[in-house]
Amino acid sequence: MADSSTTHLSPQTAQALRDWTDQFLDPRGGNQPEVAQLLRQVVDLLIEELSRAASTPPVPLEWDEIPSNLLVPAGAVSSEEILKACRSLVRGSMNPAHPRYLGHMDPLPSTGSVIGSLLMAAVNNNMLSREMSPIFSELEQRLSREMAGMFGLPETACGMMQSGGTLCNIQALAVARNHQFREQGIARHGIQSMFGQPVILASDLCHTSIQKAAMLLGLGSDAVIPIPTDEHCRLSPNHLRRAIFECRLKQQLPFAVVGTLGTTVTGSIDPLPELATICEQEDLWFHVDASYGGAVIFSDKYRHLRQGCEQADSITFNPQKWCYVTKACAMVFFRDESVLDHAFRIPAPYMSLNEESGSTNLGEWGVQGTRAPDVAKWWLTLLQFGQSGLGALVDQTLQLTQEFVVRLAERPYLELATRPDLNILCFRDLRNSERPDEYNAALQRQLLEEHQTFFSLPWFRKSRWLKAVLLNPYTTTTDLDSIFEFIDRFQHK
Amino acid sequence: MADSSTTHLSPQTAQALRDWTDQFLDPRGGNQPEVAQLLRQVVDLLIEELSRAASTPPVPLEWDEIPSNLLVPAGAVSSEEILKACRSLVRGSMNPAHPRYLGHMDPLPSTGSVIGSLLMAAVNNNMLSREMSPIFSELEQRLSREMAGMFGLPETACGMMQSGGTLCNIQALAVARNHQFREQGIARHGIQSMFGQPVILASDLCHTSIQKAAMLLGLGSDAVIPIPTDEHCRLSPNHLRRAIFECRLKQQLPFAVVGTLGTTVTGSIDPLPELATICEQEDLWFHVDASYGGAVIFSDKYRHLRQGCEQADSITFNPQKWCYVTKACAMVFFRDESVLDHAFRIPAPYMSLNEESGSTNLGEWGVQGTRAPDVAKWWLTLLQFGQSGLGALVDQTLQLTQEFVVRLAERPYLELATRPDLNILCFRDLRNSERPDEYNAALQRQLLEEHQTFFSLPWFRKSRWLKAVLLNPYTTTTDLDSIFEFIDRFQHK
Repeated sequence: MADSSTTHLSPQTAQALRDWTDQFLDPRGGNQPEVAQLLRQVVDLLIEELSRAASTPPVPLEWDEIPSNLLVPAGAVSSEEILKACRSLVRGSMNPAHPRYLGHMDPLPSTGSVIGSLLMAAVNNNMLSREMSPIFSELEQRLSREMAGMFGLPETACGMMQSGGTLCNIQALAVARNHQFREQGIARHGIQSMFGQPVILASDLCHTSIQKAAMLLGLGSDAVIPIPTDEHCRLSPNHLRRAIFECRLKQQLPFAVVGTLGTTVTGSIDPLPELATICEQEDLWFHVDASYGGAVIFSDKYRHLRQGCEQADSITFNPQKWCYVTKACAMVFFRDESVLDHAFRIPAPYMSLNEESGSTNLGEWGVQGTRAPDVAKWWLTLLQFGQSGLGALVDQTLQLTQEFVVRLAERPYLELATRPDLNILCFRDLRNSERPDEYNAALQRQLLEEHQTFFSLPWFRKSRWLKAVLLNPYTTTTDLDSIFEFIDRFQHK
Repeated sequence: MADSSTTHLSPQTAQALRDWTDQFLDPRGGNQPEVAQLLRQVVDLLIEELSRAASTPPVPLEWDEIPSNLLVPAGAVSSEEILKACRSLVRGSMNPAHPRYLGHMDPLPSTGSVIGSLLMAAVNNNMLSREMSPIFSELEQRLSREMAGMFGLPETACGMMQSGGTLCNIQALAVARNHQFREQGIARHGIQSMFGQPVILASDLCHTSIQKAAMLLGLGSDAVIPIPTDEHCRLSPNHLRRAIFECRLKQQLPFAVVGTLGTTVTGSIDPLPELATICEQEDLWFHVDASYGGAVIFSDKYRHLRQGCEQADSITFNPQKWCYVTKACAMVFFRDESVLDHAFRIPAPYMSLNEESGSTNLGEWGVQGTRAPDVAKWWLTLLQFGQSGLGALVDQTLQLTQEFVVRLAERPYLELATRPDLNILCFRDLRNSERPDEYNAALQRQLLEEHQTFFSLPWFRKSRWLKAVLLNPYTTTTDLDSIFEFIDRFQHK
């Protein structure tokens, strides 16, 4: 119970609150045992459910419907009901911990990041300003600078986090637009009065967040000029040069090029050093979307794959993917910290504690205002693994990818879309030449329903493919063998 | 250890991973006790630290510096080090659970939302698509429709969550822009070719996210036309009518009006029904930023304050504020679901499982792509309190606000900025007429340093004010009395 000096509730409202014993943790110490017990029960429930993740479906196809009267219940429900609700939510969830969940870039979460989530939730800080997140704002800034260096950016670089890679790409392209057209005062005056259409150049396999950014930023989704890719799914520099020339002929205003380190569908890596050179020659902003592939910075063996990033003006990198941090956890780096002040900042005049120090309120620098301190999850994951541990996971999952490719190569009726640059690959079954898309969709569905194996089913070059993202460290070669045996036996009725 | 069939690590990489016993929860059940123990230790640490939140500073002014070699450590650290890191993070955090933390709209978190965070983290689902968050996507859609109804929107309405109110406002204004200029094909073609500057009208006290949205959306931050407010800090409808007329005279293209239900600095409520009428007459999109004040829908006594919302085209509402949900938790509602398809949607061609059902992938409808299932935190909070419990918290904190106002009124040397519409108020000390801003800044600082009381210190009408947000249910009238006694005795040297 709250202490006796509390403001008294009217009898009606007091009754409406079931009781106070576990709805908040009493800051005066009145209810430790009750809250601790409830939290421990949730921990136990989660551990119980998820430590058998390998024997429940990777994606549930049905689940308990939440009754309508429980959506926004009139009154409070009991703790037992809350635990029951938790169990329903877990059982209706995607199950990325399953060793044969291979469909998307969504990993099973590191324990460090689960701990970080709990801690963040309990302290409820706010990255909007330093006075609302003292240690987290400082940590985010320091960690961002350190990581920008790991991508090869100079000491002038900085970075910040946003809740997801799409927001990082939007942030980077907004800064790019405002910086490249700073003489026109675009941040204040908008783009309506410009004498030409600003455009962004990116590969035809870039992530859809680039189109979304262009739409949001008032450029229009058509302002992303798709550059053809070669047989390795990599943006072709020659086509890029030609496209820049053609845009300018049409009075368009190219201002940014996006290179991708790990495309969504095939995990391919654009020729970043060549794109960087073109950007320098043509005075274009160079953004690298390393959302997925950025994790290679932790591997001594594969770090070289990030070559070209050191010449970028901005980089997106998502620890929420191949670094196993639970969502959301995404970073965006800028080559030159000063761009955030002159090409983005919107001041919030209701924060004061850091005025004297001149420190930045991160909410003024980023797309988001209020934002959770995701840096806690990322830092605790870094502590748990160290660089060497994350590097080992990169190496291990790339090794597993080679095992997968070997098994594909042994089967002439399976086609690999392109040789994988990372641990993402697409393949399809060629045994039905008349209706290949339907056949592969049926194969994907049957793998899920009868073999607890989930591949996703993207469209790629106008066909259906099965996509695998091999990032679960619990996936074994035994899993792969049993998947391929199932495929061998598959026959679509 | 992972089971024996695991892909074998090379000796070097195997050594690099400290051990496997607690870095992930083994989906085959190999390490339940180790992970459970670590999580329970974190629960105990958090409960221990935070159940004495009333006796630690509301905002720490110093904290342990994280050593540089621990930022991105070369190798893994021990579990003891991780627990130590957790303790450092908590002690360097803003402490919104302190009963005299009154500075911002950031509450101590409900236990339900802490449980929800833990659950979300452990299952690591993704609101980008239904196949990545089956039960959460369904729950978010159903709960959004239900809550849209509680704001008085019709059955055609829908909604979704985004990670913060700024994103919700950006989302709403992007849809407004694309819908109002749909004949010009603005979503695809951008606004460069338009024959006039699109503008948004909002009060001069609206949240800075409206300027940020205008900047991001390519309108420019100057495209937010500030409408004067009256002595109650409410947008003046007469000034709004005149501004619309003047914009059109200047060939500008007004397309949206933003009304606020609970302004950031004084918690004031714009005359929403009158704004709605003007929008209808002038064919403008009506957006209500109810980020803070939307919580009144739960109170039988104060629900009437949301009047006018039922005529809105879009509404932002943040359970992360006055509904005590830990960050992030924000919702945006649209009067007509179909606008999201025709005035926003960017398709992602790599999701398949819900094609047959025609269900939406929420990442195609919103600013964010990958997004955590914040709905879990919100729903578990709703279960814990019920509507009546949240309503009781609204009533109780509004009652406490009246207690605060009574104490201000008893002191002629304290000025109230404006009579509060909700539980937010600004006041200042008038005892130093020569340097009032400096004097009030010193008062704010001394309250924090010597009395563990945190007010924020916004600029409002060109002066410094102390701002209080009275949303902590553990704040008592005894707390208020001791604060006012401290102020009475305060003398700035």
